Amino acid sequence: MIKTFNPDFKQDIREKLARQGFMKLTGFNITKIEVGSIEGELTMEDQHLQQMGFAHGGLIATVADIVAGFAAASLVPKGHSVVTAELKVSYLNPGVGEKLWAKGYVIKSGRRLSFCEAEVYVIKEDHEPLLIAKATTTMATITPGDIKRRD
Amino acid sequence: MIKTFNPDFKQDIREKLARQGFMKLTGFNITKIEVGSIEGELTMEDQHLQQMGFAHGGLIATVADIVAGFAAASLVPKGHSVVTAELKVSYLNPGVGEKLWAKGYVIKSGRRLSFCEAEVYVIKEDHEPLLIAKATTTMATITPGDIKRRD
Amino acid sequence: MIKTFNPDFKQDIREKLARQGFMKLTGFNITKIEVGSIEGELTMEDQHLQQMGFAHGGLIATVADIVAGFAAASLVPKGHSVVTAELKVSYLNPGVGEKLWAKGYVIKSGRRLSFCEAEVYVIKEDHEPLLIAKATTTMATITPGDIKRRD
Amino acid sequence: MIKTFNPDFKQDIREKLARQGFMKLTGFNITKIEVGSIEGELTMEDQHLQQMGFAHGGLIATVADIVAGFAAASLVPKGHSVVTAELKVSYLNPGVGEKLWAKGYVIKSGRRLSFCEAEVYVIKEDHEPLLIAKATTTMATITPGDIKRRD
Repeated sequence: MIKTFNPDFKQDIREKLARQGFMKLTGFNITKIEVGSIEGELTMEDQHLQQMGFAHGGLIATVADIVAGFAAASLVPKGHSVVTAELKVSYLNPGVGEKLWAKGYVIKSGRRLSFCEAEVYVIKEDHEPLLIAKATTTMATITPGDIKRRD
Repeated sequence: MIKTFNPDFKQDIREKLARQGFMKLTGFNITKIEVGSIEGELTMEDQHLQQMGFAHGGLIATVADIVAGFAAASLVPKGHSVVTAELKVSYLNPGVGEKLWAKGYVIKSGRRLSFCEAEVYVIKEDHEPLLIAKATTTMATITPGDIKRRD
Repeated sequence: MIKTFNPDFKQDIREKLARQGFMKLTGFNITKIEVGSIEGELTMEDQHLQQMGFAHGGLIATVADIVAGFAAASLVPKGHSVVTAELKVSYLNPGVGEKLWAKGYVIKSGRRLSFCEAEVYVIKEDHEPLLIAKATTTMATITPGDIKRRD
Repeated sequence: MIKTFNPDFKQDIREKLARQGFMKLTGFNITKIEVGSIEGELTMEDQHLQQMGFAHGGLIATVADIVAGFAAASLVPKGHSVVTAELKVSYLNPGVGEKLWAKGYVIKSGRRLSFCEAEVYVIKEDHEPLLIAKATTTMATITPGDIKRRD
């Protein structure tokens, strides 16, 4: 079973989310923070689309990065941070619907690297949620010592 | 040498860009449209950042997706479209600076699939541009017949 | 539920496997062929390792490519083929054990593109199988017409 | 300019190559070891192919992993090692020819992570080399302390 090294992870993640300027711009909201797993959603509007009327690939990558990254962040020791080393997104279906819903989870948590996945769904009235994208990421843990070294 | 199958590609791309709601939300502007190569930039503000003050990974993926996708779109026949099948972004350096600058280009253009790359830089006063991310993508061509088939 | 367009898929896949020179070189054997899902294994020997004594990353990518590709091939119409457009492998744990076991499966099967995943495990005496790698791929369908066009 | 932290990198890489069982099995030979850049080649035979007579995707991933990984290894301090965290390969063209030639190089070398790329070409009599695949990787540096910690 995956366990966290930070008993305050929920509060610490909420403080970080409050400083995510780009997440706020998109309107994406985190709805659930668990050990090794994060969920969130947004209401789709014109500002989220590309020219064919589908959810923009960049928006989908953004929500995937957020839920995967904070899933990794939920497990690292207090005072540590997580940055995305790389992110790959496969776009399975066009994103058409009222809501975008995303879930990120850790598949391997190491001392320095975490491997995470994210699933992004659209929700349409009277339909089953449709998986529109799947992402895999490598997340790197930043220790307090790493941050000092940069100063 | 890469050649296009659409003599009106610049005009056709500008019309598609005008309908990119999410690109407008981010403030990213396309500054150059060439055969197989697209460039663009944005002025960095708080709304583009994550909690450490770096350009958000989702924003970087977004601009990479846009410049790579329209680089592919510049080559396909008139009436055809391009969608992202998959996108991978490697985050090489933290994005700190006044401007974000991105270039996308096609490395292999096929009848059905195009493989593209994108480079994303930050520009800081009195500094050389710094490469902060590199992306590789698979783009799928959508023919007018494909679109009808969906109706 | 995923369904195949080729009632002879098992036989057709076996004929293709018989002509996979590189798979034979590695000693990997397919043990199960189902609709949308393929499994296989190999007995680990020195010729499969890198310099630290772990399963070689290239071998892991090879078995992932094979099981993911034939999972996609199990679904396409008779006479069609599948080629790998791209493959990403995340290496989660060092591969140490007696056997390597791999499973590939389709997560979205389209007319032209299939998205697949593969999981690679090591099996060690008296241990649970350990997931050492996870792969995601984009597979492109080649129609009989495509092949003629190349001639 | 990229610089190495190990003056003996050529000799140290040669010793590691001598213990690469899987590389030997494939017949791939390293032909050039420079700071941050490695080249190699193999003569194509039936044992390198898939069922359509093209270079196998797994073989291509293998040579990409080797040249990218040792490019990263050429830069790390003496006694340190490099392991592949993830590898993505885009397959641009079918691999048909007498020889496979590969080059790996580092695009960002960090203390803990290196980002590398690899290009794989086929060489056919009387033809220009043809780029058949391009790979991007994240490589993790293993310090002598990391290795002890595992014991």
